[in-house]
Amino acid sequence: MTLGNASFNLIFSLENGLCPERESSKRHLSDVKNIFYDTAEAEKILAADDQLIYEFYELPLPQDDGDLAFGTSITYPGTIGDEYYMTKGHFHSILNTAEVYYCLSGSGMMMMENSDGQWECRELSAGTALYVPKGFAHRSINIGTRPLVSFFCFRADAGHDYKTIASQGFRHLVVKKNDRPSVIENPRWKAQANDD
Amino acid sequence: MTLGNASFNLIFSLENGLCPERESSKRHLSDVKNIFYDTAEAEKILAADDQLIYEFYELPLPQDDGDLAFGTSITYPGTIGDEYYMTKGHFHSILNTAEVYYCLSGSGMMMMENSDGQWECRELSAGTALYVPKGFAHRSINIGTRPLVSFFCFRADAGHDYKTIASQGFRHLVVKKNDRPSVIENPRWKAQANDD
Repeated sequence: MTLGNASFNLIFSLENGLCPERESSKRHLSDVKNIFYDTAEAEKILAADDQLIYEFYELPLPQDDGDLAFGTSITYPGTIGDEYYMTKGHFHSILNTAEVYYCLSGSGMMMMENSDGQWECRELSAGTALYVPKGFAHRSINIGTRPLVSFFCFRADAGHDYKTIASQGFRHLVVKKNDRPSVIENPRWKAQANDD
Repeated sequence: MTLGNASFNLIFSLENGLCPERESSKRHLSDVKNIFYDTAEAEKILAADDQLIYEFYELPLPQDDGDLAFGTSITYPGTIGDEYYMTKGHFHSILNTAEVYYCLSGSGMMMMENSDGQWECRELSAGTALYVPKGFAHRSINIGTRPLVSFFCFRADAGHDYKTIASQGFRHLVVKKNDRPSVIENPRWKAQANDD
């Protein structure tokens, strides 16, 4: 059933972000192992346990330019090697569409970059509203010890382009160094980039 | 300074909705006395005290169809006669644009109606995400004893049409009856309607 032609409401817990009435989309390590730069470590951890890295909601809303997509995104705490658990990250298919995140709990970073190579990385903690400008791919990274929970909203027709990031990655990574988050250049970025 | 051409973040308290870095837009009783149907009671209260009825944030975002407007809306608890404190309510100037509310605290109702006379009134409590469909005017009503705080998001170019509601009102009101909210027909609606 498509939502949004009439009004509706759903409960998303302010504590853990979960919506009891809806099934979330879940990404386990087996789904996203390639996003982490230490692939050997990812395989080793995966052999022991296919951990839940993140989950989010994709509601069946009309995909019209006057509609909005929204839900919560929950990235769990943990590391693969020294790299924090994070989402795949994506551009919007309609590139010039922004997205708003409102962080409900946890602590994290939003990595953003556009196709010109401009990038920004901003902190998220409970109460942070973060604006992802038009044209910027974005990825949530959990740098804390509790789930990173954000409410998000974007134009419903914006769509997702996961392919670009999947093939070239982000230019920068956030890793744990001396128990603190540190932004480094992605050692795998150039090899995979196809900006000839 | 216009926000949103680059990424930015702002803190909106999850407790009271306030953003210490920005000035809110405030609506006192003197600004909104005409929205309450018991005008004599509104004048009487106003003579004693020009109470703050609600406040919200209007951030200087670019008003492009790819941008988003967002902020918090805080409606304070109280009544004018038997009518709860509420916002003016508005259509969007680009009528066919939706809006998402995510209630952070308090308890309230969202009154919605479109120009065909279809209407809905839905409850808001902490954790409720509410979808205001395209074409529906909407008004927040505080039916509780604490501030009603919601995070909102809509297309930045949608604009506000306050005039239609200011001249004809909503078809339905929410009043306090035996200490509980009750939806009644607006006794002033027909007289002011201009749908000839």
